[in-house]
Amino acid sequence: MTVRGQYAIVIGCGRLGAVIAEALSAAGCSVTVVDRDPARLGELSPEFSGFVIEGDATQLSVLEQAKCEEAHIFLAVTGNDNVNLMVSQAARRKYRVLKVAASIKNPNLEAMLRRAGIIAVSPVSLTAKNILDAVIARG
Amino acid sequence: MTVRGQYAIVIGCGRLGAVIAEALSAAGCSVTVVDRDPARLGELSPEFSGFVIEGDATQLSVLEQAKCEEAHIFLAVTGNDNVNLMVSQAARRKYRVLKVAASIKNPNLEAMLRRAGIIAVSPVSLTAKNILDAVIARG
Repeated sequence: MTVRGQYAIVIGCGRLGAVIAEALSAAGCSVTVVDRDPARLGELSPEFSGFVIEGDATQLSVLEQAKCEEAHIFLAVTGNDNVNLMVSQAARRKYRVLKVAASIKNPNLEAMLRRAGIIAVSPVSLTAKNILDAVIARG
Repeated sequence: MTVRGQYAIVIGCGRLGAVIAEALSAAGCSVTVVDRDPARLGELSPEFSGFVIEGDATQLSVLEQAKCEEAHIFLAVTGNDNVNLMVSQAARRKYRVLKVAASIKNPNLEAMLRRAGIIAVSPVSLTAKNILDAVIARG
Protein backbone atom coordinates (compact mmCIF):
# COMPACT_ATOMS: atom_id res chain seq x y z
CA MET A 1 0.00 0.00 0.00
CA THR A 2 1.14 3.52 -0.78
CA VAL A 3 -1.20 5.28 1.62
CA ARG A 4 1.31 5.61 4.48
CA GLY A 5 1.32 9.14 5.83
CA GLN A 6 -1.89 10.07 4.00
CA TYR A 7 -5.07 11.21 5.73
CA ALA A 8 -8.33 9.36 5.05
CA ILE A 9 -11.89 10.08 6.14
CA VAL A 10 -14.39 7.20 6.16
CA ILE A 11 -18.09 8.10 6.38
CA GLY A 12 -20.13 5.20 7.75
CA CYS A 13 -19.00 2.61 10.26
CA GLY A 14 -21.04 -0.40 9.18
CA ARG A 15 -19.23 -3.61 8.29
CA LEU A 16 -17.86 -2.08 5.09
CA GLY A 17 -16.65 1.14 6.69
CA ALA A 18 -15.05 -0.71 9.58
CA VAL A 19 -13.17 -3.14 7.31
CA ILE A 20 -11.87 -0.29 5.16
CA ALA A 21 -10.93 1.97 8.07
CA GLU A 22 -9.06 -0.83 9.82
CA ALA A 23 -7.20 -1.78 6.62
CA LEU A 24 -6.15 1.82 5.95
CA SER A 25 -5.11 2.30 9.55
CA ALA A 26 -3.06 -0.92 9.48
CA ALA A 27 -1.36 0.35 6.31
CA GLY A 28 -0.07 3.45 8.08
CA CYS A 29 -2.76 5.85 6.93
CA SER A 30 -4.15 8.37 9.40
CA VAL A 31 -7.90 7.68 9.55
CA THR A 32 -11.02 9.38 10.90
CA VAL A 33 -14.31 7.46 10.89
CA VAL A 34 -17.64 9.31 11.09
CA ASP A 35 -20.96 7.70 12.04
CA ARG A 36 -24.16 8.93 13.69
CA ASP A 37 -24.30 5.78 15.79
CA PRO A 38 -21.79 5.61 18.68
CA ALA A 39 -22.43 1.86 19.08
CA ARG A 40 -21.04 1.21 15.61
CA LEU A 41 -17.96 3.33 16.27
CA GLY A 42 -17.44 1.30 19.43
CA GLU A 43 -17.26 -1.91 17.41
CA LEU A 44 -14.04 -0.90 15.63
CA SER A 45 -11.19 -3.29 16.33
CA PRO A 46 -8.96 -2.41 19.32
CA GLU A 47 -6.08 -2.29 16.81
CA PHE A 48 -7.70 0.64 15.00
CA SER A 49 -5.51 3.62 15.84
CA GLY A 50 -7.49 6.40 14.14
CA PHE A 51 -10.05 8.93 15.33
CA VAL A 52 -13.82 8.64 15.47
CA ILE A 53 -16.46 11.36 15.22
CA GLU A 54 -20.05 10.76 16.27
CA GLY A 55 -22.08 12.92 13.94
CA ASP A 56 -24.11 13.35 10.76
CA ALA A 57 -21.72 13.78 7.84
CA THR A 58 -24.36 15.57 5.77
CA GLN A 59 -23.78 18.53 8.13
CA LEU A 60 -20.88 20.62 6.86
CA SER A 61 -19.82 21.31 10.45
CA VAL A 62 -19.09 17.60 10.86
CA LEU A 63 -16.99 17.51 7.68
CA GLU A 64 -15.11 20.58 8.97
CA GLN A 65 -14.55 18.87 12.30
CA ALA A 66 -13.10 15.90 10.42
CA LYS A 67 -10.68 18.33 8.70
CA CYS A 68 -11.99 17.42 5.28
CA GLU A 69 -9.82 20.06 3.59
CA GLU A 70 -6.71 18.12 4.72
CA ALA A 71 -7.88 14.70 3.49
CA HIS A 72 -6.11 12.81 0.70
CA ILE A 73 -8.78 10.10 0.66
CA PHE A 74 -12.54 10.38 1.33
CA LEU A 75 -14.75 7.27 1.34
CA ALA A 76 -18.55 7.47 1.62
CA VAL A 77 -19.72 3.99 2.58
CA THR A 78 -22.93 4.37 4.58
CA GLY A 79 -25.86 2.15 3.58
CA ASN A 80 -27.70 5.23 2.24
CA ASP A 81 -27.10 6.20 -1.39
CA ASN A 82 -28.33 9.76 -0.88
CA VAL A 83 -25.92 10.35 1.97
CA ASN A 84 -23.02 8.83 0.04
CA LEU A 85 -23.86 10.94 -3.01
CA MET A 86 -24.15 14.17 -1.04
CA VAL A 87 -21.02 13.84 1.07
CA SER A 88 -18.78 12.49 -1.69
CA GLN A 89 -19.75 15.42 -3.91
CA ALA A 90 -19.02 17.86 -1.08
CA ALA A 91 -15.62 16.23 -0.53
CA ARG A 92 -14.76 16.44 -4.21
CA ARG A 93 -16.16 19.86 -5.11
CA LYS A 94 -15.95 21.92 -1.94
CA TYR A 95 -12.90 20.39 -0.27
CA ARG A 96 -11.07 19.27 -3.43
CA VAL A 97 -10.17 15.88 -1.98
CA LEU A 98 -8.15 14.03 -4.63
CA LYS A 99 -9.32 10.45 -4.09
CA VAL A 100 -13.04 10.15 -3.37
CA ALA A 101 -15.07 6.94 -3.55
CA ALA A 102 -18.69 6.09 -2.76
CA SER A 103 -20.53 2.80 -2.44
CA ILE A 104 -23.96 2.75 -4.08
CA LYS A 105 -26.92 0.38 -4.08
CA ASN A 106 -28.48 1.88 -7.20
CA PRO A 107 -26.12 1.18 -10.11
CA ASN A 108 -27.81 3.95 -12.13
CA LEU A 109 -25.95 6.51 -10.00
CA GLU A 110 -22.60 5.23 -11.23
CA ALA A 111 -22.31 7.40 -14.35
CA MET A 112 -23.19 10.59 -12.48
CA LEU A 113 -20.60 9.94 -9.79
CA ARG A 114 -17.90 9.12 -12.34
CA ARG A 115 -18.58 12.37 -14.18
CA ALA A 116 -17.96 14.16 -10.88
CA GLY A 117 -14.57 12.44 -10.51
CA ILE A 118 -15.81 10.07 -7.82
CA ILE A 119 -15.01 6.35 -7.81
CA ALA A 120 -18.38 4.55 -7.70
CA VAL A 121 -18.53 1.02 -6.36
CA SER A 122 -21.68 -1.11 -6.39
CA PRO A 123 -21.50 -4.06 -3.97
CA VAL A 124 -24.41 -5.73 -5.78
CA SER A 125 -22.76 -5.52 -9.22
CA LEU A 126 -19.43 -6.70 -7.84
CA THR A 127 -20.98 -9.63 -5.99
CA ALA A 128 -23.18 -10.65 -8.90
CA LYS A 129 -20.19 -10.66 -11.24
CA ASN A 130 -18.09 -12.62 -8.76
CA ILE A 131 -20.77 -15.29 -8.24
CA LEU A 132 -21.51 -15.60 -11.97
CA ASP A 133 -17.79 -15.87 -12.81
CA ALA A 134 -17.33 -18.55 -10.14
CA VAL A 135 -20.32 -20.56 -11.29
CA ILE A 136 -19.35 -20.35 -14.96
CA ALA A 137 -15.71 -21.21 -14.23
CA ARG A 138 -16.86 -24.48 -12.69
CA GLY A 139 -18.25 -25.39 -16.11
CA MET B 1 -21.38 -17.92 -20.73
CA THR B 2 -21.56 -21.69 -20.70
CA VAL B 3 -24.76 -21.98 -18.68
CA ARG B 4 -27.09 -22.33 -21.67
CA GLY B 5 -29.45 -25.24 -21.14
CA GLN B 6 -28.59 -25.57 -17.44
CA TYR B 7 -31.10 -25.21 -14.62
CA ALA B 8 -30.43 -22.66 -11.85
CA ILE B 9 -32.27 -21.94 -8.62
CA VAL B 10 -31.79 -18.53 -7.01
CA ILE B 11 -32.90 -18.14 -3.38
CA GLY B 12 -33.62 -14.50 -2.51
CA CYS B 13 -34.97 -11.86 -4.86
CA GLY B 14 -33.39 -8.73 -3.43
CA ARG B 15 -31.23 -6.58 -5.70
CA LEU B 16 -28.50 -9.21 -5.81
CA GLY B 17 -30.79 -12.15 -6.53
CA ALA B 18 -32.65 -10.21 -9.22
CA VAL B 19 -29.46 -9.14 -11.02
CA ILE B 20 -28.11 -12.69 -10.98
CA ALA B 21 -31.39 -14.33 -12.02
CA GLU B 22 -31.83 -11.91 -14.90
CA ALA B 23 -28.23 -12.42 -16.09
CA LEU B 24 -28.56 -16.22 -16.00
CA SER B 25 -31.91 -16.08 -17.77
CA ALA B 26 -30.49 -13.77 -20.46
CA ALA B 27 -27.63 -16.26 -20.93
CA GLY B 28 -30.04 -19.05 -21.81
CA CYS B 29 -30.16 -20.71 -18.42
CA SER B 30 -33.49 -21.99 -17.10
CA VAL B 31 -34.03 -20.15 -13.80
CA THR B 32 -36.36 -20.39 -10.79
CA VAL B 33 -36.28 -17.61 -8.19
CA VAL B 34 -37.60 -18.20 -4.65
CA ASP B 35 -38.55 -15.45 -2.20
CA ARG B 36 -41.01 -15.16 0.69
CA ASP B 37 -42.03 -11.70 -0.48
CA PRO B 38 -44.25 -11.59 -3.59
CA ALA B 39 -43.54 -7.86 -4.04
CA ARG B 40 -39.87 -8.59 -4.63
CA LEU B 41 -40.63 -11.31 -7.14
CA GLY B 42 -42.86 -8.82 -8.93
CA GLU B 43 -39.92 -6.45 -9.41
CA LEU B 44 -38.08 -8.83 -11.71
CA SER B 45 -37.49 -7.34 -15.16
CA PRO B 46 -40.18 -8.10 -17.78
CA GLU B 47 -37.38 -9.73 -19.81
CA PHE B 48 -36.92 -12.37 -17.10
CA SER B 49 -38.26 -15.56 -18.62
CA GLY B 50 -37.86 -17.91 -15.65
CA PHE B 51 -40.19 -19.15 -12.92
CA VAL B 52 -40.86 -17.68 -9.49
CA ILE B 53 -41.91 -19.41 -6.28
CA GLU B 54 -43.32 -17.48 -3.32
CA GLY B 55 -42.13 -19.41 -0.31
CA ASP B 56 -39.64 -19.97 2.49
CA ALA B 57 -36.65 -21.85 1.08
CA THR B 58 -35.72 -23.20 4.51
CA GLN B 59 -38.76 -25.49 4.13
CA LEU B 60 -37.73 -28.62 2.26
CA SER B 61 -41.14 -28.69 0.53
CA VAL B 62 -40.22 -25.41 -1.18
CA LEU B 63 -36.89 -26.79 -2.37
CA GLU B 64 -38.73 -29.86 -3.67
CA GLN B 65 -41.23 -27.63 -5.46
CA ALA B 66 -38.28 -25.83 -7.09
CA LYS B 67 -37.02 -29.25 -8.33
CA CYS B 68 -33.78 -28.87 -6.47
CA GLU B 69 -32.65 -32.38 -7.43
CA GLU B 70 -32.59 -31.29 -11.08
CA ALA B 71 -30.56 -28.10 -10.56
CA HIS B 72 -27.07 -27.61 -11.98
CA ILE B 73 -26.63 -24.30 -10.15
CA PHE B 74 -27.95 -23.22 -6.74
CA LEU B 75 -27.36 -19.69 -5.45
CA ALA B 76 -28.32 -18.64 -1.91
CA VAL B 77 -28.32 -14.84 -1.92
CA THR B 78 -30.85 -13.68 0.68
CA GLY B 79 -29.73 -10.99 3.12
CA ASN B 80 -29.75 -13.56 5.93
CA ASP B 81 -26.54 -15.55 6.51
CA ASN B 82 -28.32 -18.31 8.44
CA VAL B 83 -30.78 -18.88 5.61
CA ASN B 84 -28.02 -18.87 3.00
CA LEU B 85 -25.97 -21.30 5.08
CA MET B 86 -28.87 -23.69 5.67
CA VAL B 87 -30.23 -23.83 2.12
CA SER B 88 -26.84 -23.98 0.40
CA GLN B 89 -25.84 -26.92 2.59
CA ALA B 90 -29.13 -28.68 1.80
CA ALA B 91 -28.56 -28.10 -1.93
CA ARG B 92 -25.04 -29.49 -1.75
CA ARG B 93 -25.51 -32.39 0.65
CA LYS B 94 -29.08 -33.56 0.17
CA TYR B 95 -29.65 -32.69 -3.50
CA ARG B 96 -26.02 -33.02 -4.68
CA VAL B 97 -26.18 -29.82 -6.75
CA LEU B 98 -22.78 -29.42 -8.42
CA LYS B 99 -22.37 -25.65 -8.37
CA VAL B 100 -23.57 -24.04 -5.14
CA ALA B 101 -22.75 -20.51 -4.00
CA ALA B 102 -23.82 -18.42 -1.02
CA SER B 103 -23.40 -14.74 -0.21
CA ILE B 104 -22.42 -14.04 3.40
CA LYS B 105 -22.17 -10.95 5.57
CA ASN B 106 -19.99 -12.62 8.18
CA PRO B 107 -16.64 -13.45 6.53
CA ASN B 108 -15.92 -15.95 9.30
CA LEU B 109 -18.38 -18.35 7.67
CA GLU B 110 -16.28 -18.51 4.52
CA ALA B 111 -13.99 -21.37 5.57
CA MET B 112 -16.88 -23.56 6.73
CA LEU B 113 -18.75 -23.10 3.47
CA ARG B 114 -15.67 -23.84 1.38
CA ARG B 115 -15.07 -27.04 3.29
CA ALA B 116 -18.62 -28.05 2.33
CA GLY B 117 -17.84 -27.45 -1.35
CA ILE B 118 -19.85 -24.22 -1.47
CA ILE B 119 -18.56 -21.06 -3.15
CA ALA B 120 -18.68 -18.34 -0.47
CA VAL B 121 -18.84 -14.72 -1.55
CA SER B 122 -18.67 -11.81 0.89
CA PRO B 123 -20.01 -8.55 -0.62
CA VAL B 124 -18.29 -6.56 2.14
CA SER B 125 -14.85 -8.11 1.51
CA LEU B 126 -15.21 -7.73 -2.26
CA THR B 127 -16.30 -4.10 -1.99
CA ALA B 128 -13.63 -3.19 0.54
CA LYS B 129 -10.92 -4.70 -1.67
CA ASN B 130 -12.29 -2.93 -4.75
CA ILE B 131 -12.38 0.47 -3.03
CA LEU B 132 -8.93 0.06 -1.49
CA ASP B 133 -7.45 -1.04 -4.81
CA ALA B 134 -9.02 1.93 -6.60
CA VAL B 135 -7.82 4.42 -4.01
CA ILE B 136 -4.32 3.03 -3.93
CA ALA B 137 -4.10 2.85 -7.74
CA ARG B 138 -4.71 6.59 -7.88
CA GLY B 139 -1.45 7.05 -5.98
